[in-house]
Amino acid sequence: MYITQHTDYALRALIYLGTSRDRLVTIQEIAERFGVSRNHLMKVVNALIRAGFVEGLRGKGGGLRLARSPGEIVVGAVVRQMEPSMHLVECFGSGCQCLLDPDCKLKVALTRALAAFLEVLDEMTLADLVGQHERRVLKFFPLVAT
Amino acid sequence: MYITQHTDYALRALIYLGTSRDRLVTIQEIAERFGVSRNHLMKVVNALIRAGFVEGLRGKGGGLRLARSPGEIVVGAVVRQMEPSMHLVECFGSGCQCLLDPDCKLKVALTRALAAFLEVLDEMTLADLVGQHERRVLKFFPLVAT
Repeated sequence: MYITQHTDYALRALIYLGTSRDRLVTIQEIAERFGVSRNHLMKVVNALIRAGFVEGLRGKGGGLRLARSPGEIVVGAVVRQMEPSMHLVECFGSGCQCLLDPDCKLKVALTRALAAFLEVLDEMTLADLVGQHERRVLKFFPLVAT
Repeated sequence: MYITQHTDYALRALIYLGTSRDRLVTIQEIAERFGVSRNHLMKVVNALIRAGFVEGLRGKGGGLRLARSPGEIVVGAVVRQMEPSMHLVECFGSGCQCLLDPDCKLKVALTRALAAFLEVLDEMTLADLVGQHERRVLKFFPLVAT
């Protein structure tokens, strides 16, 4: 069971931006800090911009910053927006061929479990994820090799 | 966000066996009922046997049956055993390179969300998934094309 790397990187990028609110940040900088692919991160950041979590200022001296305050960015909303699909199993999507669909008790059970998962994340904002530990590690730790 | 097809098929196979407790069932029969690959289902059933959810009786007249009563097969336990990994994101596994690890608040948040997901499924057994609807549909509905 997993969420995609896309969402993982999106959450990390938001945490990074949350620790650096006093300035604009580049994609290169986030990629280096986390030791992840710049190209992959660019797609992630574009998705974050489209979803309204991040602002991108173009041109010389441009860069990225949060589009809202950390307390207004709900973690569950980020997961919902960034995941390509919340179709936990085949029958959550269209074109399901399973005989049990649509009145399947398993589907109901999994839907409830997914709701419980998201409910925990809906109670948290980016502000809950950005503390002294994150500020310290992301600002002063030596850059990892890319 | 998703769980694997392996677990999806495992749960469906258990539901099928739960509706057919008065006799032995073949893999071919389950594969035909759900219109899924027999080879894939064979791997799934072998995993269910290894995990102690299903008994396989070999030889002529052999077949499959539940190894325990439906009320003793906890859905959360099936998901835990069948999923190749419960590593929701990279940092749940070993060899994580993320700077925020191990004291990351995001990891704590995702761990809590995953626990909430499994908690819902831990409150349910196979008996909750096998009702009149499942018995009717799986027994009398025309076989789907394979």
